[in-house]
Amino acid sequence: MVMKMKKVEMYDSTLRDGAQGQGISFSVSDKLKIARCLDRFGVDYIEAGNPFSNPKDAEFFERAAELKLANAKLTAFGSTVRKGTAPEDDEGVNTLLAAGTKYITIFGKAWKLHVDCILGVTPEENIAMISNTISYLCKKGRIVFFDAEHYFDGYKDDPDYALEVIKAAEHAGASAVILCDTNGGCFPDEVSKIVKVADKAVRITVGIHCHNDTGCAAANTVSAVKAGAVQVQGTFTGIGERCGNAPLATVIPDLQLKLGYSIVSAERLKTLTATARYINEVSNLRLPGYLPYIGGFAFAHKGGMHADGVAKNTKTYEHIDPSEVGNYRSFPLSEVSGRSALLPKLQAVESSLTKSSSETKTITEKMKELEHEGFQFEAAEASFELLVRKELGRFTPHFEIDHYRIISSMDSLDGNHYTEKANALVKVKVGDKYEITADEGEGPVNAIDKALRKALEVFYPELRKMHLVDFKVRVITSNDSTAAVTRVLIESTDGENTWTTVGASRDIINASVIALTDSLEYMLKDR
Amino acid sequence: MVMKMKKVEMYDSTLRDGAQGQGISFSVSDKLKIARCLDRFGVDYIEAGNPFSNPKDAEFFERAAELKLANAKLTAFGSTVRKGTAPEDDEGVNTLLAAGTKYITIFGKAWKLHVDCILGVTPEENIAMISNTISYLCKKGRIVFFDAEHYFDGYKDDPDYALEVIKAAEHAGASAVILCDTNGGCFPDEVSKIVKVADKAVRITVGIHCHNDTGCAAANTVSAVKAGAVQVQGTFTGIGERCGNAPLATVIPDLQLKLGYSIVSAERLKTLTATARYINEVSNLRLPGYLPYIGGFAFAHKGGMHADGVAKNTKTYEHIDPSEVGNYRSFPLSEVSGRSALLPKLQAVESSLTKSSSETKTITEKMKELEHEGFQFEAAEASFELLVRKELGRFTPHFEIDHYRIISSMDSLDGNHYTEKANALVKVKVGDKYEITADEGEGPVNAIDKALRKALEVFYPELRKMHLVDFKVRVITSNDSTAAVTRVLIESTDGENTWTTVGASRDIINASVIALTDSLEYMLKDR
Repeated sequence: MVMKMKKVEMYDSTLRDGAQGQGISFSVSDKLKIARCLDRFGVDYIEAGNPFSNPKDAEFFERAAELKLANAKLTAFGSTVRKGTAPEDDEGVNTLLAAGTKYITIFGKAWKLHVDCILGVTPEENIAMISNTISYLCKKGRIVFFDAEHYFDGYKDDPDYALEVIKAAEHAGASAVILCDTNGGCFPDEVSKIVKVADKAVRITVGIHCHNDTGCAAANTVSAVKAGAVQVQGTFTGIGERCGNAPLATVIPDLQLKLGYSIVSAERLKTLTATARYINEVSNLRLPGYLPYIGGFAFAHKGGMHADGVAKNTKTYEHIDPSEVGNYRSFPLSEVSGRSALLPKLQAVESSLTKSSSETKTITEKMKELEHEGFQFEAAEASFELLVRKELGRFTPHFEIDHYRIISSMDSLDGNHYTEKANALVKVKVGDKYEITADEGEGPVNAIDKALRKALEVFYPELRKMHLVDFKVRVITSNDSTAAVTRVLIESTDGENTWTTVGASRDIINASVIALTDSLEYMLKDR
Repeated sequence: MVMKMKKVEMYDSTLRDGAQGQGISFSVSDKLKIARCLDRFGVDYIEAGNPFSNPKDAEFFERAAELKLANAKLTAFGSTVRKGTAPEDDEGVNTLLAAGTKYITIFGKAWKLHVDCILGVTPEENIAMISNTISYLCKKGRIVFFDAEHYFDGYKDDPDYALEVIKAAEHAGASAVILCDTNGGCFPDEVSKIVKVADKAVRITVGIHCHNDTGCAAANTVSAVKAGAVQVQGTFTGIGERCGNAPLATVIPDLQLKLGYSIVSAERLKTLTATARYINEVSNLRLPGYLPYIGGFAFAHKGGMHADGVAKNTKTYEHIDPSEVGNYRSFPLSEVSGRSALLPKLQAVESSLTKSSSETKTITEKMKELEHEGFQFEAAEASFELLVRKELGRFTPHFEIDHYRIISSMDSLDGNHYTEKANALVKVKVGDKYEITADEGEGPVNAIDKALRKALEVFYPELRKMHLVDFKVRVITSNDSTAAVTRVLIESTDGENTWTTVGASRDIINASVIALTDSLEYMLKDR
């Protein structure tokens, strides 16, 4: 029993319930990237999508074999059979099987309101639909988790029926039953009581799935685990339907650093912040600064007394050491702020640098200046390395752009619009030689990228090995609308290594050219 | 005793602890605006600043007489006397008195770690500093609240000492003692236990002040109130030091709508969302969509099954009625949403449409096709309305773009890069008239925006009232790098209404022009 208390399984639903968050739209390639990242972090289960509701999810499962996951198991998510359908004839159930995962998560109703008003079946029929679906999938060799939707509302309405539903799931062969606060309206004390009763009623693993509609998703999840729940469902950064799901990036350190549970190794926990940032970066979401543990403000001490206190003893205003979750302490208004955070990164380029080296100060100031202009080096380590090299006098540019011209145009004919390919010409200088050339592309950035590469390959044929793998645009100060500062992040690869560079400017083309230039220089840096 | 259980005082610290949130910088005029707004909502106390630490706060108190508050009492916030100083000689204490408020909130240490390590005094000296300060302020006719800083960490470390501190505050004349989880590291069950003990130890009002470092600020506050705390301290939308404070906009509806407390009238509670939005608007912060009750996503039903369920019975996926907090239900449009989510929006344009109308089917298909190309209508309701009008044959374009040319360029001189302003020329057709003009801007999108507007204002002078307020860019299929599809979202306003449009294309300029065109057409739609 004590063993059970201390074991926790991480079940991440970023790719399914997270995709139901407003403004989220994952491509299949985004989903593959996020799955790889969750696997590296060490989650136990990745709920990767609902193949029946969404053709994109079906495509994901087709490509899932590429993933070669080391830690995590993929689960496909779907509903019980429809009213009056046998599992073998149910299109949804068959689509789930076709996804080809060993693990399948089935959701079914535990609240009579839904049974009656949404499904339009009797309470007994609902239980039969759940049982039949689970036993059919088990017979097909799958391990089945049962999400008891609206379990808490259902239990408050009719405890006997809610318990009957989860017992039926156990009896039909489910390996775990997950109690869902689907509407997110619960509080920790009631979650605790209801989980304890369920945990006594079944022998299989009990799980918890909370939403944040009362602002209690993390607290409810923690209290469920204390009450006996083992499988913790959530999304890594808390995105999801309405107010979102319980954020695993909050719940995991809550349980492990503060309540004595052992979930991931201390080493992996140190990648918590980087994992969350990567996931939000791929999702094209800004990571809110206020997020516990992982947010940019989580260990920022702004009040003067707070900053002074932390300088004397960090425990005075920090409930944990930020390095345990891979985050950094900062002092937003103090000039000393960034330097301790920056140091490890500086030392990676030049190990002799210390906190008090004059170069450390110069680089910190240069960085602050550039960040003020809209650059951001957090996700652009290649640009950061070039910046450090420049400031240390260890950088000689491999080329200069003399000038470029880009023309974008559109013409109408008979009411239809024809966008011509964008045209770019560029002249570069390498040593004392010049090369001028041109190319065309889909949009101005693509055109200048192609033209620049074409000119430089004359001097550096190895650039042919390199190509861009990702291109992200973020408008920073959106108040000025189309004249706002634009930040561009470019990810490049030479087939072996991958690096990211950043550019910022009021002109998107210029921001892109800055990032492209860094990207090319980084490829050539050891030449 | 039952009476005490159900009474709750709202104490808002947006202007003090909120100002310690990263990126927050209130002007005196901002503070006056927010104070007025909090008063209208009906909070009991407004902690308006620390006049000794901050000259801006001192100025606020000078101007506070302008406010003429109807409901709220202002409190000035400050520290106990310094080590070895008598209250009458202490500059901080005298500045607090000079602020001229009837209510004063004093914070002092309840954790020996701080007493020793930060103040450098003995535990007895600390208690004397607290007592002397409070009794001096009481003698001067002020009502004093005592914030027991780090009460929970202090209690866990040495319960007797923590209790001694709050008893001393009571004995010295404090009217309330507020238990602070200053480092935000607590969980609801421990908060509940510790509050119960404190509530038995003193006869004065017990308050609660939580931070969100474990993601439990709202849950901890609610559990403290259930355990006997009466004064609820927080910031309206949760801004504050590090991960922020307990958000009153979450805690108030939690307590009133779900747990039977009576805090504000039902009428005022309906202004909750508007109050929060106004405060964040003045603070120059976007209100995060995920915030419980008040966020833009809080009642957004994106999953198809969720939208279907809510259409049948709102209770199926809503824990409260959004109108109770002045928020709205919405059905974001996306590939995961089904036809029922779409229907209310279709009916807003043409009320006779049903789920089975052939137009409903055609529009749904057109939408899916456009989403496949990279459009996304979830956040672009204006583009969606135009799409529906087009499909119903109820749209006549107010203009056509005949052609445009945009030139972006950069030149080097002595190693420096000079980006010229981007230049755009555009020719539009309105009826049988043509207008050709040009403009320049920061980047190609800004240039074409200005040129297009300039040409159209010749025909539609009302477009002068309209301007862009936000511009968002997202690269969708990032695998193709710079040739990927780009989605542009543009938010426009005419000063009264605000609307969002979308464009998608492999060329960012073209995507922007599509969104700009919709934006202009939407402004002209009822002409």
